Amino acid sequence: VSGAPSLERMSLNQRTIRQWSLPQAIDGCVRAGVPAIGVWREPLADTGLSAGVRLLRRSGLRVSSLCRAGFFTDDDQAGRTRAKAANRRAVDEAAAIGAACLVLVVGGLPEGSRDLDGARVRVADGLADLAPYAVENGVRLAVEPMHPAFAADRSVVTNIGEAVDLAAAAGSAAVVGVVVDAYHVWWDPHLATDLARSAGRIASYQVSDWVTPIPADILNGRGLMGDGHIDLPWLGAAVERAGYRGDVEVEIFNSRLWAEDPAGILEKVKERYLANLSARPGGDVRP
Amino acid sequence: VSGAPSLERMSLNQRTIRQWSLPQAIDGCVRAGVPAIGVWREPLADTGLSAGVRLLRRSGLRVSSLCRAGFFTDDDQAGRTRAKAANRRAVDEAAAIGAACLVLVVGGLPEGSRDLDGARVRVADGLADLAPYAVENGVRLAVEPMHPAFAADRSVVTNIGEAVDLAAAAGSAAVVGVVVDAYHVWWDPHLATDLARSAGRIASYQVSDWVTPIPADILNGRGLMGDGHIDLPWLGAAVERAGYRGDVEVEIFNSRLWAEDPAGILEKVKERYLANLSARPGGDVRP
Repeated sequence: VSGAPSLERMSLNQRTIRQWSLPQAIDGCVRAGVPAIGVWREPLADTGLSAGVRLLRRSGLRVSSLCRAGFFTDDDQAGRTRAKAANRRAVDEAAAIGAACLVLVVGGLPEGSRDLDGARVRVADGLADLAPYAVENGVRLAVEPMHPAFAADRSVVTNIGEAVDLAAAAGSAAVVGVVVDAYHVWWDPHLATDLARSAGRIASYQVSDWVTPIPADILNGRGLMGDGHIDLPWLGAAVERAGYRGDVEVEIFNSRLWAEDPAGILEKVKERYLANLSARPGGDVRP
Repeated sequence: VSGAPSLERMSLNQRTIRQWSLPQAIDGCVRAGVPAIGVWREPLADTGLSAGVRLLRRSGLRVSSLCRAGFFTDDDQAGRTRAKAANRRAVDEAAAIGAACLVLVVGGLPEGSRDLDGARVRVADGLADLAPYAVENGVRLAVEPMHPAFAADRSVVTNIGEAVDLAAAAGSAAVVGVVVDAYHVWWDPHLATDLARSAGRIASYQVSDWVTPIPADILNGRGLMGDGHIDLPWLGAAVERAGYRGDVEVEIFNSRLWAEDPAGILEKVKERYLANLSARPGGDVRP
């Protein structure tokens, strides 16, 4: 592997340029020489599944992930039944588009609940229920721990260690993996240890940056790689030591980017990728 | 211990009503029947140390903490020398006002640095350096882990387990304790285990609530107890099981409260304290 910067493992997560439809995003990646894409279910549905499948195949792009399913934490039976059906549809879609994994956001606390432990138990139950269906369909699940800022309303699973334990309880590494999203996990004092424990189980690696001061809209204020506080070369090397050889997905939720010219954003993202990551999947080893 | 709600362990952290000077806050607590106060250094300096000491003594209030010192993470020698001197002055002040502990916010990443591990090492060094001076002056230090949302700019120490390890490395439980602030630690999957590990080392327990949607100013958008997602009865019981018998400090950074009538805020805070905590220091056991 050459050490020269290269885009060979770069993937554009669609949410980074959400103003593009799926056909536009596919076309944009092909034109820009970006070899992979992370697809979101909403724009896929807008295009239609079979049309999306055709466009993706014809493009030659790798599909690094399908985002997203999960949301296992409802505390009423009706909600869990709905989630179960939705998750099976998401597995079907991931299989159809040949996604390397289906990203699972586990869900936050139900309305009015303060029972984190109970919610975590429902996540484990939901994963155990979904895993066999994923196996049947040849889809790898990927549990995404999120930053603790989102523990109440999006994900009661907040670190890699927890995600690995949940994944391991639900299935083999080939069936249930974890997502390492730099933005969500960079602060964790157990990160190095838990990434080592994740060996073989990392199904997706996503990059952006944590910027300060924290933007007013914390959910949609992620930074471009290099603008913030995350040691991406270190993290990429740790992810690679844990055996990850897949694509490096750029996923930047940033409402200011969504107001810019899409092709221009992609050029900027490519520059930042080349400057802050490297030819190797996750980055070079720490200096 | 009676199970009836009571204010006997309640403390008002001055920052909850920052529009009050120290004399006003002391007077407000006495009038409202709140028996303890958490003092901040800036309003103490405004009043003058000796005047502050006299007013606090005369009031009969317990001083549950002095906020705050620390900020050990500077990566240049000049910055560390300044921090060292400032921390010694803070110990002197804590001794003078008879504070139950001196709260230490450890500091974030220095400008331009992405080296979390290096910053954590400087925190350990700074604590080890400060602990003997605290012993000489009869002051208990209290390391405060902060929510990971503040890892970059305020505290590279983000959970109780990390804080306990740092405290234990720096001194005995009587010399270096930890702060359990509900807002900062509620999300942590290791919380129950790490609180058990903290037995005898909890030096301060602070309460507020985590509300959603996350306010635009995340630093100053904490909720009143009962308005958010934190299971305060559970947390209080866990803190009590870990041997904490001190005051329960209400510390709510909320810019909207700071625009309200101070006496009215204190009445509201008392109501929420009685409704969401209990006669026992930290709260009753989980139902």
